[in-house]
Formats: sequence, structure tokens, C-alpha cells
Amino acid sequence: MSSSGFASTPDPPYYAVIFTSTRTTVDEGYGEVADRMVELASRQPGFLGVESTRGADGLGITVSYWTTLAAIAAWKANAGHRVAQASGHRKWYEHFEARVARIERAYSGPNAP
Amino acid sequence: MSSSGFASTPDPPYYAVIFTSTRTTVDEGYGEVADRMVELASRQPGFLGVESTRGADGLGITVSYWTTLAAIAAWKANAGHRVAQASGHRKWYEHFEARVARIERAYSGPNAP
Repeated sequence: MSSSGFASTPDPPYYAVIFTSTRTTVDEGYGEVADRMVELASRQPGFLGVESTRGADGLGITVSYWTTLAAIAAWKANAGHRVAQASGHRKWYEHFEARVARIERAYSGPNAP
Repeated sequence: MSSSGFASTPDPPYYAVIFTSTRTTVDEGYGEVADRMVELASRQPGFLGVESTRGADGLGITVSYWTTLAAIAAWKANAGHRVAQASGHRKWYEHFEARVARIERAYSGPNAP
């Protein structure tokens, strides 16, 4: 991960999980487990990086990038991840939408392409 | 668009543009043009919805959803969008990464799938 908040990703194709969420008012354990999940993910084979932000209105978007769909499936099956999901999703998230995507093209700037 | 901040999207496949950015300190015209771009996009054929947030650290993630790659290309070629890009990208964005993706799978909850 980059300290700038941007993920360093290779030329496409690669894959992403777009996780959009609103939080409950329960904070108990959330920050700790969220940090732990990022640490676990970053040691998972095929992990490329993550971009994550949450606005003042409570909407959060986290995009994690992966080399392959198999790497995403392995992360979903990871024991630590599963424990966090089972214990935390209902407690911490009011609602979430998760989308698995294949990145086809990428560009950067401040210049319009 | 949903007032909840979540986009209502159909069953996959569909497409997304993930736009991650940091802003400059220049605010002049930004809010107005950003609102106008969302309004223009929502009237563009093939537009499905948008999810957008910016954190206190300045990192913003906007994900717009589209029916096809052709709809995304048409939006990129839209006159209003091009004017905003030409006048605004250098002034308003310190850096951005744009990624065009095909959504393969989607699920929601608070329950872990």
C-alpha cells in the first residue's frame, strides 16, 4: 500500500472488490478488526493494494485490488477474514454492497486523458 | 440514484468507473461542477447510479455504474464532461486514478455471504 492512499496497481487486467457500506453506531472492536483485516489481506497471495475512505455522512467505500479471481476467493476463505465476517458484519455494518470486478483499463492524471 | 448513498444496480454483468482522487486546495467552482457532472451523468444513456465519498484525509472515491463499455465511452465524449475535464482536472485534483471495470458478481448484506 502507498502512504498516499492510492494503490499501486499493474497494467490491467486485474481484479477488484468494491465494498460500499454504512456503519451502525457500534464502534466496539471495529477499528482494531478493520486494521487487522487490512494487515491480513496485505499478506494474502495476490493482494495488490487497497483504497479506502469514509465520508462525514457515514458512507464508506473500500476498493481492494487482486491479481486474480482465485486470489479473491482465497481471501474470502481465509480463516481470519471469516471470523471477522461472522462476528462483525451484523454488528458494524448497517448495510453493505460488495461487487467483484475485472479492471479492464486504467489511467491517471491530473490531465484529462 | 438512491438517497441512501448506495447505487441500485441490476444483476451482473455491468460496468463501473472507479475514480480515486486527492483534491488540491482550490475550491473555486468545484462543488458546482461536481454536482453538474452527476446531473449530466444521470441523464446519460446507460447510467445506472453512483456511489461517492471523501474522507477527512482528503482521499475521495467515486464509483459510477454503467450498462456497457459503450455507455462509458459516450459519457467520456459528452461535451459537458469534456469541458469540465479540460478546465477542472488540473485545478481541482492533485492526483487521480481512474479504472474501468466489469462487475462480475455482487452481493449485499449485513450478513456475510
